[in-house]
Amino acid sequence: MQKATRIAPSILAADFSQLGQEIQRLDQAGADYIHVDIMDGHFVPNISFGPSITKAVRPVTKKPFDVHLMISPIDLYIEAFVDAGADIITIHPEAGPHFHRTIQLIKSLGVKAGLALNPGTPVDIVDHVIDDLDLLLVMSVNPGFGGQSFIPGALGKISALRNKIDALGKDIDLEVDGGINFDTAPLAVEAGADLLVAGTATFRGGPDNYANNIKKLKGQ
Amino acid sequence: MQKATRIAPSILAADFSQLGQEIQRLDQAGADYIHVDIMDGHFVPNISFGPSITKAVRPVTKKPFDVHLMISPIDLYIEAFVDAGADIITIHPEAGPHFHRTIQLIKSLGVKAGLALNPGTPVDIVDHVIDDLDLLLVMSVNPGFGGQSFIPGALGKISALRNKIDALGKDIDLEVDGGINFDTAPLAVEAGADLLVAGTATFRGGPDNYANNIKKLKGQ
Amino acid sequence: MQKATRIAPSILAADFSQLGQEIQRLDQAGADYIHVDIMDGHFVPNISFGPSITKAVRPVTKKPFDVHLMISPIDLYIEAFVDAGADIITIHPEAGPHFHRTIQLIKSLGVKAGLALNPGTPVDIVDHVIDDLDLLLVMSVNPGFGGQSFIPGALGKISALRNKIDALGKDIDLEVDGGINFDTAPLAVEAGADLLVAGTATFRGGPDNYANNIKKLKGQ
Amino acid sequence: MQKATRIAPSILAADFSQLGQEIQRLDQAGADYIHVDIMDGHFVPNISFGPSITKAVRPVTKKPFDVHLMISPIDLYIEAFVDAGADIITIHPEAGPHFHRTIQLIKSLGVKAGLALNPGTPVDIVDHVIDDLDLLLVMSVNPGFGGQSFIPGALGKISALRNKIDALGKDIDLEVDGGINFDTAPLAVEAGADLLVAGTATFRGGPDNYANNIKKLKGQ
Amino acid sequence: MQKATRIAPSILAADFSQLGQEIQRLDQAGADYIHVDIMDGHFVPNISFGPSITKAVRPVTKKPFDVHLMISPIDLYIEAFVDAGADIITIHPEAGPHFHRTIQLIKSLGVKAGLALNPGTPVDIVDHVIDDLDLLLVMSVNPGFGGQSFIPGALGKISALRNKIDALGKDIDLEVDGGINFDTAPLAVEAGADLLVAGTATFRGGPDNYANNIKKLKGQ
Amino acid sequence: MQKATRIAPSILAADFSQLGQEIQRLDQAGADYIHVDIMDGHFVPNISFGPSITKAVRPVTKKPFDVHLMISPIDLYIEAFVDAGADIITIHPEAGPHFHRTIQLIKSLGVKAGLALNPGTPVDIVDHVIDDLDLLLVMSVNPGFGGQSFIPGALGKISALRNKIDALGKDIDLEVDGGINFDTAPLAVEAGADLLVAGTATFRGGPDNYANNIKKLKGQ
Repeated sequence: MQKATRIAPSILAADFSQLGQEIQRLDQAGADYIHVDIMDGHFVPNISFGPSITKAVRPVTKKPFDVHLMISPIDLYIEAFVDAGADIITIHPEAGPHFHRTIQLIKSLGVKAGLALNPGTPVDIVDHVIDDLDLLLVMSVNPGFGGQSFIPGALGKISALRNKIDALGKDIDLEVDGGINFDTAPLAVEAGADLLVAGTATFRGGPDNYANNIKKLKGQ
Repeated sequence: MQKATRIAPSILAADFSQLGQEIQRLDQAGADYIHVDIMDGHFVPNISFGPSITKAVRPVTKKPFDVHLMISPIDLYIEAFVDAGADIITIHPEAGPHFHRTIQLIKSLGVKAGLALNPGTPVDIVDHVIDDLDLLLVMSVNPGFGGQSFIPGALGKISALRNKIDALGKDIDLEVDGGINFDTAPLAVEAGADLLVAGTATFRGGPDNYANNIKKLKGQ
Repeated sequence: MQKATRIAPSILAADFSQLGQEIQRLDQAGADYIHVDIMDGHFVPNISFGPSITKAVRPVTKKPFDVHLMISPIDLYIEAFVDAGADIITIHPEAGPHFHRTIQLIKSLGVKAGLALNPGTPVDIVDHVIDDLDLLLVMSVNPGFGGQSFIPGALGKISALRNKIDALGKDIDLEVDGGINFDTAPLAVEAGADLLVAGTATFRGGPDNYANNIKKLKGQ
Repeated sequence: MQKATRIAPSILAADFSQLGQEIQRLDQAGADYIHVDIMDGHFVPNISFGPSITKAVRPVTKKPFDVHLMISPIDLYIEAFVDAGADIITIHPEAGPHFHRTIQLIKSLGVKAGLALNPGTPVDIVDHVIDDLDLLLVMSVNPGFGGQSFIPGALGKISALRNKIDALGKDIDLEVDGGINFDTAPLAVEAGADLLVAGTATFRGGPDNYANNIKKLKGQ
Repeated sequence: MQKATRIAPSILAADFSQLGQEIQRLDQAGADYIHVDIMDGHFVPNISFGPSITKAVRPVTKKPFDVHLMISPIDLYIEAFVDAGADIITIHPEAGPHFHRTIQLIKSLGVKAGLALNPGTPVDIVDHVIDDLDLLLVMSVNPGFGGQSFIPGALGKISALRNKIDALGKDIDLEVDGGINFDTAPLAVEAGADLLVAGTATFRGGPDNYANNIKKLKGQ
Repeated sequence: MQKATRIAPSILAADFSQLGQEIQRLDQAGADYIHVDIMDGHFVPNISFGPSITKAVRPVTKKPFDVHLMISPIDLYIEAFVDAGADIITIHPEAGPHFHRTIQLIKSLGVKAGLALNPGTPVDIVDHVIDDLDLLLVMSVNPGFGGQSFIPGALGKISALRNKIDALGKDIDLEVDGGINFDTAPLAVEAGADLLVAGTATFRGGPDNYANNIKKLKGQ
């Protein structure tokens, strides 16, 4: 069942010199989740940050930390992100041949598990793990590459996954990440998404506008 | 010629929720360089952070950014760190077979170049690149692993490199990183080091003590 | 067509100090195949053993050696396992982009070929190779990780593959590996499996019980 | 819509000591595309050649250069092949987790993009990229391995992709590569292919026969 | 100080179908250490076996298990070999950039540590770790490749390392592995070795000759 | 003993559309060896070509083919280059931990073996293999990177290797590759080199000048 639209601002677009304060502002501005993008410069061509920075800013809010791991190998680092305070850990099936096992590992540590689909990844990759998932993440840009805009083809994938979730009747967040702004957010929601990652769209205009931006992204 | 002892606090030990402010405090406390540890979870078993965070905090100080790359592959990311505002980029010969080329690349972009030696690495690895170097970094712990203390064997390596630098008569910083505290700093300086990376030793006791800590590390 | 249930004890659970004798006991206890698990510590996070040990114990029985390769790269080692006396060699599609070629290579050396599906792997991966296969292996735990139990979701995958095999009308063993015991064996058979890998369930209670254990696993 | 059969001779089978002249002969003999096979000895177990040789022979003909990249990593080399004069660049989804991005990169540089399917690769891998493609390449042998003949199972894959192309109603070349000769060419065309890669079949009998060979491959 | 010659039979040459008994025979025949060769098919082109087999045969003797790891990555597996009962764990500096750390890890687990030098590896690689070592292993063949004989150049390397050990005045075993037989053993001892790995030379002529073979290898 | 200067033109700078003819011109212009640069896009960031092109042009001259392998892994491809007609195969110690073995493999196939040193590589890497070598190659640029000029530091390395060769008293070619032109050639020869790889310097001014260029490079 599609839930009311929620927003998970990506802190990759925040001011890193005052990350704690930025997260507090997002919290007060109505962010539902804090979206944390982890990149290792190998699975994706960019290094963002790792578990120690995640842990350092975890205490400043009670909002769930929604951690998207764009790293490979991955199993070695799961425990560090749990320890850093992740509430949801989302992985890529492309990160290794044992992604079912990685999901089991995440859940065995008491954390929710998500699966992210790259723009080119077929939807049936979810079929044998969906029972264990709490979140499905449709990438609407290719992760880790700069200067991209929302890929329209993601809408079909969102619909297909919405159908799978509803057929299963399980409470699974359907999240979309990449190029989400005031124009694309309604399209993603219409296709079935109920959780939107927004980077620059959240932060545009500075701290005074965070609340308004989030409201608009929610379609309110 | 060994210079007066200078301190490069590693921001890995700073409070990441207010990194800009932390760096300003280090600046005012007498830090000579800001030491930036980049780890990718592949060359070392830990992910710290990458160029975007480096860039975000670069404007808050005019002190040189001394960036230590513990990543492999490496050439792909040099330009991003130059663009992020690095003044010195230090690499490992173990990061790939073409480290001479990486040094040339760094220098061609107008930035100073350093070479880092792991605890087990023989000193003759510097022989064919020392002419192009501005900094030599002796690792006195194994980079990227937690819970280690200063390796006494590093002192012999510092001496050997001090001799090579003096024989060459070139202005090359001789930096030591790992387990530097009030006890080990004088040993490193005595062995020939003139630039000390200090993490927890700088930050201990909180912001009010940064200046004192740095002074003591300098042996003043 | 689903055949009568056969048992392939995994020698990974045998006493390695007397492996020859253990295999002879399994032979006499009614094992149909001898299941040989090869792990390289790269494709899976565990090193078991390789072709030389396989070859050393090959002469002690005439039962077919059913060799499951959890290694990558893989093509380089096929000939060694054929030479070691493998009757069936089962590979993973995740081991490399050319698994169709690996199957052709196995068959060109006069040995039967199998394809193993990890718990997360979609079933359509078999579509373009099933014509060349003699065995399909459904992993009901993630291979190479310790302390796991039978994944119920494997039952749906067994059924789906049973349908594909029967639609093709070809004699293909449908094997299940992972967490098979007296409780899960009947479920796997009911779903369509006709060859069960059993490790601890075969060996429990010591040599005197091997025959009984195998009988019970067969549902007799 | 299936177009009239066109032939793309693979220059891998040409005389490399006079490659310019060979390509001119192919041009005059009626080749529609010049098929260029790039192998790096990593994605496939063979090293053919790279962008500099491609560029060196580009000026001798105006026929489109249809470049098939059997390399991984791949993004780093796209620009070099565009610069070398490629008209179409075809990649493998198995070359990395971001093949959608590679296709976008190719198109952003003003070149047509193709996707190649290995013999074992399921057809639904094309579903989320077909909108951006100009060519689909069905491998009817495993690329980079010697001594193989046409895999009959490729015919079903050609038909399935023909249906997808026609359903989409987009002008996409459907190319087949591997074991194409006078016997297999008509089968591939009948299944829906409209572009055939031919190596030895084009070159057999020497330069005097190129025109005839191409004609026969076209079924004329 | 060079000690009296001791023999470490490599169980790679034993009869693996009765490995427990073979090791007991070696024990009774006067073997000083049991030499255990671990190969992963990646660091060397051969897969031998891993920790579970090592552990299975550990109880049959009280002789020290001298475990030679020809694997990479390596740190992940150290604990498993300690748990399997290794008394000495020998690693290659070529297995990764942090071999000093691997030695520290081994010693922190209460086990002796060795360093192995490939035939081409320069001797100064030991300089910054020799203080922590209990054993130096000179490879007199290239590990993991079949059909090789003793490389005479190893003698110079043995002498050089003997000098380093004696200069240090520490009790470090100087072991040689590869092509050791009745002809080469005296040469290795003369050059300074005091621990010889012997595979086929120990086992030749069958169990009745093990004691004699070991005696002869010791020069008695 | 330093021999009279010989020239090995690198065909990487030839016109690839008529490679056979180019090599014949070099032969007639007085080239001593034909230098063949093999790059795989992994060991170096460039793909040149592989064994099939090498083999295709081998018949057009009787001059020795001096093949420089900038590839990794390497052992898998040695036989193909022997089969392609290589007379000397030169490898990098950085290509893998078993370079001693690769040299043995080359020699076992009846071909001469060389070792190449990257600009940053210390000279003692040759110490345990020099007895088996027929050629030492000092890289005076970093291989596989464009737009570089002769690295003056290479001269010291040439001298050091000249001393090692003369001390050994063995007939070993001392080759230099990178940025060799009319200005740098005499410097390399003065430092001890007796075999010069020359790319653009050989080809400058077109075919009519090849002979003159080679003469000048020889200092005649």
